[in-house]
Amino acid sequence: MSPRPAAFESRFLRACARRPVDVVPVWFMRQAGRYLPGYRALRTRHSILDIAKTPELACEATLEPIRKFPLDAAIIFADILLPLEAMGLRLRFNPAPTIDHPIRGPADIKRLAVRPDPESLSFVGDAIRLARRELDGKIPLIGFAGAPFTLASYMIEGGPSRDFLLTKALMREIPGSWDTLMDRIVRVTLSYLKMQAASGAQAIQIFDSWAGALSPEDYRASVLPATKRLFSGLKELGVPLIYFGSGASGFLEDFASAGAGVIGVDWRIDIGEAFRRLPGKAVQGNLDPALLLAPLPVLKKAALRILRQASSRRGFIFNLGHGILPQTPPDNVRALAEWVHRYGGRDSGAKG
Amino acid sequence: MSPRPAAFESRFLRACARRPVDVVPVWFMRQAGRYLPGYRALRTRHSILDIAKTPELACEATLEPIRKFPLDAAIIFADILLPLEAMGLRLRFNPAPTIDHPIRGPADIKRLAVRPDPESLSFVGDAIRLARRELDGKIPLIGFAGAPFTLASYMIEGGPSRDFLLTKALMREIPGSWDTLMDRIVRVTLSYLKMQAASGAQAIQIFDSWAGALSPEDYRASVLPATKRLFSGLKELGVPLIYFGSGASGFLEDFASAGAGVIGVDWRIDIGEAFRRLPGKAVQGNLDPALLLAPLPVLKKAALRILRQASSRRGFIFNLGHGILPQTPPDNVRALAEWVHRYGGRDSGAKG
Repeated sequence: MSPRPAAFESRFLRACARRPVDVVPVWFMRQAGRYLPGYRALRTRHSILDIAKTPELACEATLEPIRKFPLDAAIIFADILLPLEAMGLRLRFNPAPTIDHPIRGPADIKRLAVRPDPESLSFVGDAIRLARRELDGKIPLIGFAGAPFTLASYMIEGGPSRDFLLTKALMREIPGSWDTLMDRIVRVTLSYLKMQAASGAQAIQIFDSWAGALSPEDYRASVLPATKRLFSGLKELGVPLIYFGSGASGFLEDFASAGAGVIGVDWRIDIGEAFRRLPGKAVQGNLDPALLLAPLPVLKKAALRILRQASSRRGFIFNLGHGILPQTPPDNVRALAEWVHRYGGRDSGAKG
Repeated sequence: MSPRPAAFESRFLRACARRPVDVVPVWFMRQAGRYLPGYRALRTRHSILDIAKTPELACEATLEPIRKFPLDAAIIFADILLPLEAMGLRLRFNPAPTIDHPIRGPADIKRLAVRPDPESLSFVGDAIRLARRELDGKIPLIGFAGAPFTLASYMIEGGPSRDFLLTKALMREIPGSWDTLMDRIVRVTLSYLKMQAASGAQAIQIFDSWAGALSPEDYRASVLPATKRLFSGLKELGVPLIYFGSGASGFLEDFASAGAGVIGVDWRIDIGEAFRRLPGKAVQGNLDPALLLAPLPVLKKAALRILRQASSRRGFIFNLGHGILPQTPPDNVRALAEWVHRYGGRDSGAKG
């Protein structure tokens, strides 16, 4: 870990709280991932689940991007689907995530464990403790979980989906069972995230990657109530709460009403427009991940455009609009993080 | 064709022009498709391309939903990728569309034909003439084409894509060639659609199914200029112009500035909000196609919700937010079309 100025230490947490910062903080979703040589080497010997369940390996994956790039936050290496195992489902990666015997009706939902063995996810807590020790107070560590809708869709579809037909059918046609499912997910996720915070996670991000499959009305009627309960329960942890969604620009205000103080947006909306539609919120985003594959001048121009719109706003955290793509050149990640710091000062004007 | 009241004849065209209608008009994207038994029977004997290129078969596919359901518009059976053949690319369906030797650089773009043999797409004109004769002035017939961005993405990726990395790379890194490509697509599409209008198409819809892959800035800088030229060239045809996009709610105003009088929206935005953001435009949409698979009471409730928000608006055309899914029960399509007429009057109040 290279030495960093004192102000650097809490830049990310200050921005989450909409407090002034010296320069815009930056981290990247899936920054610990396949685009990194160290992680790829790890994956030749270990499966994703092995890495996630072995605290030393998860810690190593977490720290690789922090050692390499000037990032303002680390995020613990884990997978949003891990709590499904604690709920009694069987999870595999081949390489897309697959759930054996996905949930197809009320009986399946009733069988789900709601008070999982507290030990069943303790490896994530152990990884967080290890990573906090290594980070040594210099870079804050983010914990995370999947949002109720996104987790439910995996549990029902059995893997990634295009049309979410089974999920929507259960949601619309058996609303009582759907609510039970959402409630069980919320309870398990709350206990999981409390454990993460107790282990040292200094902020929590909730990933609602598939929210964009929904109409605003479906979101409000079938997803928002449970998601509100989740955020309401997380408030007592006293750490910043980030709610990321993809494809939710059509109902951003509803999405933001779930209760997080920081809203993560995808690249399908101007960041300035996101700030206008989200008064009182910190906003995280929103570069198209495909731009990290472009030549540096193209990447720089796009990054500066976002900084021009957002760097003078209270509570801006630079990120991508979705996770880093595996094809991303690591040098571009470094260059982008450096530009955010160089041009993301309140007075630098992002002129480039 | 069952007899229909006189007012029925031009309900769709009147709504496109934001003129008063007796009840809300309705048609469905991909209404001539795999959910219909007649079409499936046709497909056991003929490929998609065979049907599209044989005017009698294309006419038959076009008319099947009109014969079965009380729809207010027919849309000619064709595929948005047909003009790619006229431009010199080889197109196959197996079953996803595949383009042999997709475009990978400037040399490929230069090779594209810009003045295709006027005969090369004449089968679409023949199908339109046949369908108009069969429709006998009772139901208007929509012609269509793919939008420049959506067509370019197929030409470059060689088929459907998730991340559009090759398309975005060409667009951002070789902007001169990208503009040449867009220009060639616009020229071919203009001549193709002029032929459709001359053959009898009474409205034109442009499908920008992949617009949601773009950031607002990419859309404005690299896609909007060519799309504006397309709509500008289409104006002289004197028929209503519909521009449908999926995933464009984050930049709906930019999308609408391309020049169509009717904007088609997906289901990720409230239809009332779409009207508010699109002053002066007619709006088409926006039921989640997955709802057509739901039990009738669930489907009805969702349809009435849209009608409550939109049926008193000038220029509302009921449609889905994307194409009909193959798993859709035809009886649900009939029920939905009937409800739109029953509850879509200005005074019916969509009470159900």
